[in-house]
Amino acid sequence: MSKPGIAITIGDFNGIGPEITLKSIASPQVQKYCQPLLVGPLDVFQWHAKRLKIKLNLQPFKSPLSETDGRAIPVVNLGIFHSRDVQIGRVSPIAGTAAGLALHKGAELCLQREVAALVTAPISKSALSLAGYSYPGQTELLAELTESDHVTMMLVSKELRIGLVTVHVPLRDVAASLSIERVFGTITVVNHSLTRDFGIRKPKVAVLALNPHGGESGLFGREDEDLVKPAIELAKTQHVQVEGPFSSDAFFGNHQHEEFHAVVAMYHDQGLIPLKLISFGKAVNFSAGLKIVRTSPDHGTAFDIAGKGRANPSSMIQAIRLAIEIGGRRRAEALKTGRVSRRR
Amino acid sequence: MSKPGIAITIGDFNGIGPEITLKSIASPQVQKYCQPLLVGPLDVFQWHAKRLKIKLNLQPFKSPLSETDGRAIPVVNLGIFHSRDVQIGRVSPIAGTAAGLALHKGAELCLQREVAALVTAPISKSALSLAGYSYPGQTELLAELTESDHVTMMLVSKELRIGLVTVHVPLRDVAASLSIERVFGTITVVNHSLTRDFGIRKPKVAVLALNPHGGESGLFGREDEDLVKPAIELAKTQHVQVEGPFSSDAFFGNHQHEEFHAVVAMYHDQGLIPLKLISFGKAVNFSAGLKIVRTSPDHGTAFDIAGKGRANPSSMIQAIRLAIEIGGRRRAEALKTGRVSRRR
Repeated sequence: MSKPGIAITIGDFNGIGPEITLKSIASPQVQKYCQPLLVGPLDVFQWHAKRLKIKLNLQPFKSPLSETDGRAIPVVNLGIFHSRDVQIGRVSPIAGTAAGLALHKGAELCLQREVAALVTAPISKSALSLAGYSYPGQTELLAELTESDHVTMMLVSKELRIGLVTVHVPLRDVAASLSIERVFGTITVVNHSLTRDFGIRKPKVAVLALNPHGGESGLFGREDEDLVKPAIELAKTQHVQVEGPFSSDAFFGNHQHEEFHAVVAMYHDQGLIPLKLISFGKAVNFSAGLKIVRTSPDHGTAFDIAGKGRANPSSMIQAIRLAIEIGGRRRAEALKTGRVSRRR
Repeated sequence: MSKPGIAITIGDFNGIGPEITLKSIASPQVQKYCQPLLVGPLDVFQWHAKRLKIKLNLQPFKSPLSETDGRAIPVVNLGIFHSRDVQIGRVSPIAGTAAGLALHKGAELCLQREVAALVTAPISKSALSLAGYSYPGQTELLAELTESDHVTMMLVSKELRIGLVTVHVPLRDVAASLSIERVFGTITVVNHSLTRDFGIRKPKVAVLALNPHGGESGLFGREDEDLVKPAIELAKTQHVQVEGPFSSDAFFGNHQHEEFHAVVAMYHDQGLIPLKLISFGKAVNFSAGLKIVRTSPDHGTAFDIAGKGRANPSSMIQAIRLAIEIGGRRRAEALKTGRVSRRR
């Protein structure tokens, strides 16, 4: 059986995206298990490769991917951008435009089944915004591009899987963004993904409380009583094995996360502080509920170290590995249920 | 030199407070370094001691503490409460009333310099509320009782010191509770306490951002630009060594906390999730800026295991040790500057 195709978007080319992409695909463990397909300006990839002294035979992509010469790395060339457009370490609209366009292309390649999964290098949300995209992040843009309604950002490591109810929301707006439906929706997406994407037959999900001490019976906020508990009860009626709401500091302090397959957090830092403390550099961002398989590293563009050759590709390599794993699992399931032909 | 007197309040007598108090003072390392003075109903302490089979010579307290018989443990007896009032594991107004009264007494003993410091066993905020106290916690009540204006809840362990700008506030109200003055005030209190109470000559303080990704230049909330940064700049003009705002997940993920003497967090779970992950069972609550020295364990009443003899006194023992240490340091400083007589 041929190696699965994995599309990798360049991210913000002023950041460490091109560097970690090139370093990752140069690693034998990646080349052995997949056929990478880069998405971004070929000239920019070549410029970065030269600076990094990484020798790769980058070639313009010709469909189908399965007929690619084994020694070449195909690139879906966004030829309107060039190395002269690169401004290392800077937020620029042109880098935002290129990053956005690469996402369009990457999503398309998945939807057309040219590749099994998409891995996205980090973008700058400010640059994306300057380029006219009014999306808080890549996940939201990909949800739109693939017409996926219920997408949950999950952070995945060996030790911990976190699902986020809200993500790129000012802390001020988190409480008002919650509803029974939304918390229930996240529990459901996470639970379903644990089975479909991670192969866990009877998943157990924990849900964190929004307020300190879980709201202390309403003394420190009513949302845990009024929204989170009913959402958990509703999920139980759908036969989801779910517990909570847990006071988040005590939950992690007591290492209760080790008893569950995933933890649903109400907001970004509630989930990402423990995740990064427990698994930094080894966690991967996965978009549960998205119609295509998409992963990305758990860090940003790191403008401060961009262009210096010091970026660590380990989270990117983990992202590629998880994409291969989940892409493979979904494909096996589709073959079993006859939803795709065996040839692809 | 005689051992320093440490007052210990009973906390909620339906919870694990009496148990961890008795277990702590039965430990040789506590008895060696301080003269404990319990505050609570003598009958209730005796009832708990009997159940736990802890043999202690509990005696009604007679001032001054320095003349206590070395084999006795003196108790400031709140004689209106009895063992028949105990309802293990339950939230009851009478336990709340006793807990509140013990705090009044404990604060008084410190203000009168009968003892060097106060250690408070955990209370139930719900019981305190049922008893008619409209305070979110012990720290706020003690601030009122001792007329201390700028009190900051700090959580202290060997690995990490956290100062909280907001504490027992619904997450919904956190952002609106912040102001330049309040963030600046917390930085100042923490910085001062590091020198005065922890003996650090040139402290370095880190400040966490409120919003995810530090607000991403205002895309995810303006508070980090509009309030947190100006507060940090203001503190710098007062010669405080302070840095931030740091994106909280990346900060802990990169172990940057190891480079600072304390970390200022904007809200409860932002500080307590990493604290408990890094130091659970060994962290102590310290009220920086309070006119008296006060510590407490970093956990609650644990009603679920109350009365079973299974409560772990390690955080309580750490709280007593820190109270001895800080009480001693403040006393030495006062002696040096001639603010107290050498006799006490």
